[in-house]
Formats: sequence, structure tokens, C-alpha cells
Amino acid sequence: MKRVPFQTLSDQLYRVLASVGFADERALLCARLFAENQRDGVYSHGLNRFPGFVEGLRNKKIDFHAMPEKTESFGALERWNGKMGVGLVNAQCCMQRAMALAEAHGIGCVGLSNTNHWMRGGTYALQAAEAGYIGICWTNTTTLMPPWGSTEKKIGNNPMALAVPRTEGHILLDMAMSQYSNGKLEVLKLQGKQLPLPGGYDSDGNLTLEPGEILDSERPLPVGYWKGSGLALVLDAMAAIISGGQSTHNIAQQDSEYAVSQVYIAIDATRLMGQAALDEMVAAILADFHTAKPLDENEGVRYPGEGMLRTRRESLEKGVSVDEKQWQALLEMHTMP
Amino acid sequence: MKRVPFQTLSDQLYRVLASVGFADERALLCARLFAENQRDGVYSHGLNRFPGFVEGLRNKKIDFHAMPEKTESFGALERWNGKMGVGLVNAQCCMQRAMALAEAHGIGCVGLSNTNHWMRGGTYALQAAEAGYIGICWTNTTTLMPPWGSTEKKIGNNPMALAVPRTEGHILLDMAMSQYSNGKLEVLKLQGKQLPLPGGYDSDGNLTLEPGEILDSERPLPVGYWKGSGLALVLDAMAAIISGGQSTHNIAQQDSEYAVSQVYIAIDATRLMGQAALDEMVAAILADFHTAKPLDENEGVRYPGEGMLRTRRESLEKGVSVDEKQWQALLEMHTMP
Repeated sequence: MKRVPFQTLSDQLYRVLASVGFADERALLCARLFAENQRDGVYSHGLNRFPGFVEGLRNKKIDFHAMPEKTESFGALERWNGKMGVGLVNAQCCMQRAMALAEAHGIGCVGLSNTNHWMRGGTYALQAAEAGYIGICWTNTTTLMPPWGSTEKKIGNNPMALAVPRTEGHILLDMAMSQYSNGKLEVLKLQGKQLPLPGGYDSDGNLTLEPGEILDSERPLPVGYWKGSGLALVLDAMAAIISGGQSTHNIAQQDSEYAVSQVYIAIDATRLMGQAALDEMVAAILADFHTAKPLDENEGVRYPGEGMLRTRRESLEKGVSVDEKQWQALLEMHTMP
Repeated sequence: MKRVPFQTLSDQLYRVLASVGFADERALLCARLFAENQRDGVYSHGLNRFPGFVEGLRNKKIDFHAMPEKTESFGALERWNGKMGVGLVNAQCCMQRAMALAEAHGIGCVGLSNTNHWMRGGTYALQAAEAGYIGICWTNTTTLMPPWGSTEKKIGNNPMALAVPRTEGHILLDMAMSQYSNGKLEVLKLQGKQLPLPGGYDSDGNLTLEPGEILDSERPLPVGYWKGSGLALVLDAMAAIISGGQSTHNIAQQDSEYAVSQVYIAIDATRLMGQAALDEMVAAILADFHTAKPLDENEGVRYPGEGMLRTRRESLEKGVSVDEKQWQALLEMHTMP
């Protein structure tokens, strides 16, 4: 592992995007979001996914000229068409719109069809929290796991992110409906590491700690067995209904994952109770939470997002951790001889 | 097990409620909801919980004269005070209100403070689905499980219910954030049955299939380990913020679980796409889902709520299954000599 300054990382990412013709404020946003994922320790959706993202722009699978468009409006609920544009841009735009709707109506909801991979769902829930809103968003995906009771991948892992705003640092839960996200399995496989708990089955149908075996068998375990399996199905149906877009089984008929459906919900938490009262309430919840007797005396009990905030602070102080090979590959991407 | 006609069951439940002075249309509603839980096979929240519910009415812990009251309004988002009234009545009222808000604004959200146990969360999500809305609701509870990495119960199991409307039968996911709800553990313990998969730890800290051991150790396993633990915390914080009511750590300071906080969200799905198109979309999702190769050739893969619909049909045809002792106890409750 190597450490590089956040701005250097962000600049390099932008340089590559610009080299394929994506060179405006939306490209700056994408460079920043990829850099932020890496900064926050979300290595599953940082540098390791960037080459694939650039490839999508280069081969015109993703249209970086497209801007999302509102297609229907029902007051606090809107439908937007992502027009096969850049997933990160569409996502940020739609969460921003959900927040504007929440400002007007207390709660706002945007269904987004025809969009592409948003990388890290937590980005957009945090975007809402930064502005004092409760943020909730989820996406569907192509088929990535078998439903409970089946050996055949038929449902998405449909990540969902939820954030609660707090001045001192937001609570952020960002979870795929598989026990480990595909990105996480890929990263651990690359590092030659085992999972801490079984994350799926090997090709013989036995539970395994080996990320590579799960990627091969295509049988990751749903979170909480039948519960995560059910939740994945419900989130997919809701995303398709609210956005009017594709559901997982439609996406799976394509040659790759694109034109997915997403939902963005914002709730105006600071209007409900004011920032000071909100901070006090959340602080009291977390203070009590932190008194929970830990299983391991050397490790305190952490709320969702707490570890991320630590990593972020460390990244900003000492530089962002990057895999040396991935960093070298980034430096060499699209440089003219 | 014995079978009794739905109406007989409902009548008996109402008779007991009336005997403690709770004798109006809200009491009829409660009798019906308890009977429906039993009818749908949700034995964890049917007859087994009824004596405790009646006890709460008798000893005036629950005020059956109280009606919930709107305290704040922000357009599509409202706060209601449950005034320590009957949880089932408050819940139904607030989901109805969320639906009315959704009719006006596309989406509606109600935060309910100061309410009591709603019994089965699925009831209210189904209430929304029956009228063509996507229904989402959750509740906080007192401390019922340790967060991931701790041995001390500090978080609620905070059940959440989600329903997707469909003419042929709604999709319904009703899940506590523990792998098994407390009610389920109680029912299986009573039946002398083991859990199909580990649901928590025994008092020595080993994973166990014995429901009684988990009830004793007070260490149920969160759904998906750290994920369900995180989700429980986030749902609690959101419920407290949106409703302005108590969070789990406040409730845990009382001598028992009352004055909980809940959230109700409705989304006007039929207005988004019309009933026929909605039915077609959900049918296509489920048709593809049902083609998943089952692990056990004798058991198809089921969507959330599918098993319940089967049980409901059987209950309506052959009578509702009741535990003979519980049924006898109901017949003998509050009969004057």
C-alpha cells in the first residue's frame, strides 16, 4: 500500500476522464467521488472500479453527454430518466432533487430509470446528510445471487444506503443484500484474504470463507438468509415500480449490467427538529450505544460509518491508501507517448 | 392444533375486549387484526400475545380511549402523537394518513410517537398494498439484542414491513432485525422445536439452535451480523427523529416497553403506472423469480408473503389453526360465573 494526497489522486482521475473527452464539471464530480470512495476506505468502489468505468465511457456504453430528465411529477414524488448517462452524475442529481422536494414537502422521492452503476451508494446518502436530510437510496443490479432456497442466481444484491445527519459525523449504513458485496469479494480475493464469516457457497455447495470460490460458484449468501433474499426482491420491485424502469430480470437479459433503476428519498430532518436538537438526540443514541460491553475488550462497538470516519481522517492527514499496482496503472492510463 | 372459523375467533376476541370496556369499532378492528394474524399463520403475534394485550388494557397501561393526534405538518410529512393509545389502532390510523398524504403528494410519511406495540408490522404494510400503495413501516422497540461485537443487549430488533401491491396477492416482507423475532423464539420454544439455523448465542457464548437458550442469554443474532445490527440502529434513530418520540435507549429506561416510535410511508404505486401495468410488471418479476432452480426439488422458491397467502387460503377454507390450550384459555377469559 502507498499513500497519495487526496488532491493528487483526484487530479489523476480527472486527467484520465478528460483524456477520453469527459472534461467538464460533471467529470470533476466523478473524479472527486472516486477519490472520496478511496479516501473513505471503500476500496471496493475506488481505484479498482475506475478502469472499468473509463472503459464504459470510451466504448460509448455510457453516454457522458447525457443529462437526466424529469419525465413525471406527482408533487413530492418524481420520475427521472437517466438516459444511459453517467451513473454517478445521475445519482447525485436525483438525490439533490429529492432534497429539493423534501424542502418543499417535508419528504421527497425520486425514481430514476435507465441509469448506470453509481459505484458507492453511501455517497448519495451522505450527500443528503451533509445538507441536514435523512438520506435513503437503493439500486437494483443484474442477477448476482440465488434467492434463498435456490442454487441459481436470479436476484440482484441491490445495495441500499441510509444516512442520518449529525454535525459531528453522520451515521451511514451502506449495505448490499449479499453478506459481502461483489466489490468486497473482488478486493479480498486480490489481497489473498479470507472472509471473517461465511459469505456463500463453493461449487460443491459448502459454505466457504474463500472470496474466489464464491465468485466462481456465483452463490453468495443473502444477508440473514431468507430475509436478505426477500429484501433484495422487494427493493428491486419497488425500484422498477417507482422509476418505471427495468427490474433485475430485464437487466439480466442484456449482455452486461446497464440501464438499472434506483430510488432516492430525502427527509428534511433539520426542519423537523433543528440542527441542535437533532445533534443532541443522535448524540444520546450513540453515547448509549457506545456503552455496550464489547465482545473483545480491545475493540469498542462501532456504529455504521464510524470506522469510515476514522479512515477518512487518516487519509486526509497521511494521504489516501492506494494499491501500488492500481496507482501505477492509473498514472499510466491514457498517457500519450 | 385445532381449527376454528375465522368469524368465531374474531367474535371471541371481541367479546374479551368488550369485557374490559373496550367496545367500539376500534375494538372490533383490534379483534379482527389479532384474528388475521392467526389466520395468516403469524402465530408469533396472534393468540399468544392476546392475553398480554388485554392485560395492558385492564391495568390501564394502554389507554383505549385515546386517539392519535396530529402535532406537526410539513406537507407530505406529518408527526402524530399516539397518546399512549392502542398500538394497533394508532398504527392503522397513521398508515391510513400516510396513504392520504400519498394521494395528495405521490408519497406520504407519518412519524408516530408515544404509541404501543403494533403486534404484526405486516398488517399495516398490507393495509397500504390493499389500496394500491407501496407500504413501508417500521417500529423501534426496547433493547432486545446486542449490537454486533457486543454481548450486551443495547439495540432493538426494530421490525420493518414492506409491501408491494398486486391484485393476485401482495408481496410482503415483514422482518425483525434479529434473525428470529422474539415472538418466533417464544412460539418455537413452546412447541419444543429447534431453529432451522443458528439464531443467537447460549449463555456460554456458543451459537445455538435452541430458542429457549437464546431467550435466556438475551443474545439473539442480528440479521446478517453487522448489517442487521447497523440497520436496527439506523431505523431507531430515524424513527425517533421523524416522530420526535423516544428512541430505544429511552424506552429501555422504563419498567417495560411502551411509548415507542414508528414510521409509516406510502407511495402511490397505482397512480404511477395504473393497476394493470403494475400487475403486469410484478407478475413478470415473480414469474422469472419462480424459475429459479430450487435447492430441494420438492420445494419451490417462494417470494416473501407467498407462504402466508397459502396459509390464509387454507385458514379460510378449513378454519384458523389455534393452539388448543390458547383457544381454551381465550374461551375462558373474563367469563362471568
